[in-house]
Amino acid sequence: MRKVSFERNFSKHAEGSCLVKFGDTHVLCTASLEEKTPPWLRNSGKGWVTAEYGMLPRATGDRMRREAAAGKQSGRTQEIQRLIGRSLRAIVDLEALGERQITIDCDVIQADGGTRTASITGAWIALHDCLKWMEARSMVKVEKVLKDHVAAISCGIFANQPVIDLDYLEDSAAETDANFVMTGSGAIVEVQGTAEGAPFSEEEFLTLMRLARNGIGELVQMQKQALL
Amino acid sequence: MRKVSFERNFSKHAEGSCLVKFGDTHVLCTASLEEKTPPWLRNSGKGWVTAEYGMLPRATGDRMRREAAAGKQSGRTQEIQRLIGRSLRAIVDLEALGERQITIDCDVIQADGGTRTASITGAWIALHDCLKWMEARSMVKVEKVLKDHVAAISCGIFANQPVIDLDYLEDSAAETDANFVMTGSGAIVEVQGTAEGAPFSEEEFLTLMRLARNGIGELVQMQKQALL
Amino acid sequence: MRKVSFERNFSKHAEGSCLVKFGDTHVLCTASLEEKTPPWLRNSGKGWVTAEYGMLPRATGDRMRREAAAGKQSGRTQEIQRLIGRSLRAIVDLEALGERQITIDCDVIQADGGTRTASITGAWIALHDCLKWMEARSMVKVEKVLKDHVAAISCGIFANQPVIDLDYLEDSAAETDANFVMTGSGAIVEVQGTAEGAPFSEEEFLTLMRLARNGIGELVQMQKQALL
Amino acid sequence: MRKVSFERNFSKHAEGSCLVKFGDTHVLCTASLEEKTPPWLRNSGKGWVTAEYGMLPRATGDRMRREAAAGKQSGRTQEIQRLIGRSLRAIVDLEALGERQITIDCDVIQADGGTRTASITGAWIALHDCLKWMEARSMVKVEKVLKDHVAAISCGIFANQPVIDLDYLEDSAAETDANFVMTGSGAIVEVQGTAEGAPFSEEEFLTLMRLARNGIGELVQMQKQALL
Amino acid sequence: MRKVSFERNFSKHAEGSCLVKFGDTHVLCTASLEEKTPPWLRNSGKGWVTAEYGMLPRATGDRMRREAAAGKQSGRTQEIQRLIGRSLRAIVDLEALGERQITIDCDVIQADGGTRTASITGAWIALHDCLKWMEARSMVKVEKVLKDHVAAISCGIFANQPVIDLDYLEDSAAETDANFVMTGSGAIVEVQGTAEGAPFSEEEFLTLMRLARNGIGELVQMQKQALL
Amino acid sequence: MRKVSFERNFSKHAEGSCLVKFGDTHVLCTASLEEKTPPWLRNSGKGWVTAEYGMLPRATGDRMRREAAAGKQSGRTQEIQRLIGRSLRAIVDLEALGERQITIDCDVIQADGGTRTASITGAWIALHDCLKWMEARSMVKVEKVLKDHVAAISCGIFANQPVIDLDYLEDSAAETDANFVMTGSGAIVEVQGTAEGAPFSEEEFLTLMRLARNGIGELVQMQKQALL
Repeated sequence: MRKVSFERNFSKHAEGSCLVKFGDTHVLCTASLEEKTPPWLRNSGKGWVTAEYGMLPRATGDRMRREAAAGKQSGRTQEIQRLIGRSLRAIVDLEALGERQITIDCDVIQADGGTRTASITGAWIALHDCLKWMEARSMVKVEKVLKDHVAAISCGIFANQPVIDLDYLEDSAAETDANFVMTGSGAIVEVQGTAEGAPFSEEEFLTLMRLARNGIGELVQMQKQALL
Repeated sequence: MRKVSFERNFSKHAEGSCLVKFGDTHVLCTASLEEKTPPWLRNSGKGWVTAEYGMLPRATGDRMRREAAAGKQSGRTQEIQRLIGRSLRAIVDLEALGERQITIDCDVIQADGGTRTASITGAWIALHDCLKWMEARSMVKVEKVLKDHVAAISCGIFANQPVIDLDYLEDSAAETDANFVMTGSGAIVEVQGTAEGAPFSEEEFLTLMRLARNGIGELVQMQKQALL
Repeated sequence: MRKVSFERNFSKHAEGSCLVKFGDTHVLCTASLEEKTPPWLRNSGKGWVTAEYGMLPRATGDRMRREAAAGKQSGRTQEIQRLIGRSLRAIVDLEALGERQITIDCDVIQADGGTRTASITGAWIALHDCLKWMEARSMVKVEKVLKDHVAAISCGIFANQPVIDLDYLEDSAAETDANFVMTGSGAIVEVQGTAEGAPFSEEEFLTLMRLARNGIGELVQMQKQALL
Repeated sequence: MRKVSFERNFSKHAEGSCLVKFGDTHVLCTASLEEKTPPWLRNSGKGWVTAEYGMLPRATGDRMRREAAAGKQSGRTQEIQRLIGRSLRAIVDLEALGERQITIDCDVIQADGGTRTASITGAWIALHDCLKWMEARSMVKVEKVLKDHVAAISCGIFANQPVIDLDYLEDSAAETDANFVMTGSGAIVEVQGTAEGAPFSEEEFLTLMRLARNGIGELVQMQKQALL
Repeated sequence: MRKVSFERNFSKHAEGSCLVKFGDTHVLCTASLEEKTPPWLRNSGKGWVTAEYGMLPRATGDRMRREAAAGKQSGRTQEIQRLIGRSLRAIVDLEALGERQITIDCDVIQADGGTRTASITGAWIALHDCLKWMEARSMVKVEKVLKDHVAAISCGIFANQPVIDLDYLEDSAAETDANFVMTGSGAIVEVQGTAEGAPFSEEEFLTLMRLARNGIGELVQMQKQALL
Repeated sequence: MRKVSFERNFSKHAEGSCLVKFGDTHVLCTASLEEKTPPWLRNSGKGWVTAEYGMLPRATGDRMRREAAAGKQSGRTQEIQRLIGRSLRAIVDLEALGERQITIDCDVIQADGGTRTASITGAWIALHDCLKWMEARSMVKVEKVLKDHVAAISCGIFANQPVIDLDYLEDSAAETDANFVMTGSGAIVEVQGTAEGAPFSEEEFLTLMRLARNGIGELVQMQKQALL
């Protein structure tokens, strides 16, 4: 696993924020609180947590077209931001949050593989700090809203070897690529396995899942460390 | 598993086509051949297989806004069509296809859960028949291009019971929902597991994967039957 | 005139639906009821009937780009869906409907010329069945809302001969092309005549109109038959 | 019929231009020549004539939203510009034009009903003058390219009386509304009849067509006058 | 400075309107009153003045793509319409206007350089006449709302000589180009200086500013003349 | 003036990059080299320098809507990125650059007023370092391409006092606001002065310009320092 770090309170304005680094992958996660919910939750007593994802045009080796200039978000962007949102909602009690919305923006400053897993892992810190901000204003109790940790890691088979936390080169060359999102208590939130080249066997998949379980355990420890 | 049927040659114009039904979920899959490839494959000697997905506005219980009128495809639509394309490419030899593109359109005529798994399973038939059409014109050898079957099924935990091929009601109420795409030889192409409510354990996930393996085995038999 | 058929209740979900076939042109018409009106009719006591039109990408001989992917509806699509909506409103008493909206979706599953005329003719059945569904729930009286039948047919001059219900080949080669929408009582709702090649004379036009009158008379009989 | 006038060479830049007035409806028509054709005509030896239509936001009684700000052209705009283009192509020999495109822009400076018929009638002058400009440069022979005049008029039934060239108030209140496009020799290019309220009878329609034939005859005389 | 003229009441429908000509640059300015404000001013007691800008496609030497067809307004268009709006608001008392919005549309009928300065100068007339229209209906007092005149002119350095009111040819070749917006009392509302080629010195800039001050003084005199 | 700093080589991938800080305003500037030019410069022997600008959604006190999600760039964004591009091109010899394009992306990580002036000032560093990278590969000579420094600063009148480098609070409350872009040799590249409230006098404007000249002189010294 690459070197992981969390820089809390990176942003002056956001209620919670964290610059997360998985090696050369750097993602700025900010949590923004709004005192309103999406229309379908009005008067339900429940709040909402959602996420948006973006990449700076030159976060990557070759410059990519700016999505704002292209006039739409790519399918990949939408897929990732939906995944981040679902992952966070899995460990949030939306009733305890109350009729509010927290939007987590995950913006990739520099990319080297694993941007979605770094985003989820850093987003949890930003969300936590936003809830702390709210707790300081007597709006919520953090432990009521935040039921558990959540973190994510990619695993793959590269040169016939199972590897964890693939960087861009490994990811591009991997035969198989899976992303795992798990809670602090080891339960599965999301599993996404994709055979890039040849389909993979159940045993290979189970090997990756075990690897991920260990890696996510470590990430959760680091999250706890970062909150001290 | 719900009643599954394939109606081949449903479309007068397409090189291959299939109306697939998983219970009340009906998807029309058409395969369209073009003698050109995407720009990034020009002069590579390789072809491409891609997919697009759509839903008629009243395929669902409540009418949904037409995506053409809304001016864009939803994140969900893009996620599904990317999944269908990846699933098909996993069992196609793109070099044997040659510099051509086959586009599989999966249009949901009526929806009752499992539209993405029905789409993948029916798309394989449409792709096969398109390749047969090409073989009849001495363009390819089907067995060179099509390396295996591919089919997909959803499994979930509903009322504490593992269930396969969830319909809309089961899907809406399921605690956990996973889609599996596997080949005829039992290898995994894609795994997508999502905890809608509470996160799930590894054992639960393995139960779902076993269930899916059996279901996909049956679907592959039905595909073979349909080709007779 | 080509073989015409109506398959009622084609859709499980829609309040009214009909798969209409004019030869190899197949259009699925669904009627969706909503208990709201467009903004400009609020508190007017009047309802609204509107239509949307679409074509599956491979309904045609060559695959066409999906309008949802292109990000907008073509001028042709908008022209046709406006025509369908006007044609239906011409035979509906919007006050008797009450403050509700019925949306008729006409989706071309397979195209071989005459998709707009088949759409109008089938849409009438879907609308009728939606009103019957409402009548069964004591919301309206069908005979109060639905003032007459409406049906449509194309006529043209092809190889110097007047022909009715042109298929794609005839339509492409026709010197002149006109679409007529008429009521059950023979009144004209819409006339659209277009000289594709040489302009046409008034006599030619009148020949086409007489041809259309007969054809629409037959279509109305078939609609009546289909309701039995 | 309202007072009609043509002001030729209204624009300093365009190859042909005409400010046409039908009463208080004022449309600026400009013809722009480009030495290229649409892709589907390349190397065909044929040219193309196309039209675009727009309205200034306050051309109308109430300000309308600017289409450029809305981000798309309305269905009505597209319908009208397609009609203008077809009408002009009906009297142009595209082979004699050669591989060039002439774009006629019809921009409504002030609207009071009949903008599409004024546009077609004025567009013919702009097109003629563009061809004259080309003839002066030995690019074409006008009489080879321009086979006939074309002009258009609306007719309707208003307060039970057939009326010609409806202004906005008449048009809004008309029971029936038809637009006719005819050539100088009296042949029909386009007929569009729409029952706004009650459907109309064949006799009513024929009355309108006769009225239109006379009106268009007068318009063609005025076009000839304007060219002197 | 080129010949300048104002044609008031050019439009039948608008509350105020003016066709302004700076040489061959012709802009139609219309003022449209609406009894509502933008959302952020609701219940503030203040109104709003805003502007939109457009060019007919063949206002220029080469036809430009219609922005409504392109689906968006260019950066240049947005820059200009924001400038016009700011310039007008600088001399309007928004509280004295009351909770209403006046939209000034500046549409370039023919372009030959200086379209933004002509637009601002003509827009003031249209705004004035709209306020007169309102005064006639006892809605406002003109002298309370309209605090001063505003007009604009471009200056540049062309062939080493300072020139005022550049036409298209001068503008294209100018080394330096500055637009000035000033009030009737000589105060500065906006200054925009851009070095097209080599950067310019402070003295050059001051020369242009003095030139502009004189020119704008003349324009304000002509505005006064036009109101007589 | 607030504390200014430049962090060069902030990005692993870009040919040149700089994180510039003007107080709490932080902008990441990256320079991306492409071996192609815009279409209108093909075979001209000249290259191009262009800029794009963006803001992370929570760079500001309240979260702003992501432009990629909104589907378009705001008028403000387009205005700023056009300004940055013009400012850089004013000090670049496009022929010495050769047929290549350098795109400068200025992405605001945190905003507190002056994002456009910080962007221009930091963009110069990124551009310089990109040219150094090219020089190391014998593609260009830096001193041939880069004719001078360029930097920018805002000045305004706040509480009746002239102030330089306004932060967000000062900017919001300023009566007058002007942005100046000047070269290392003190020549003016762009001047943009806007009266937010009352129009301003020529003397006030000259005061701001003198203030800016000093400030830009300091910024250029800091740029030089940063290159050591």
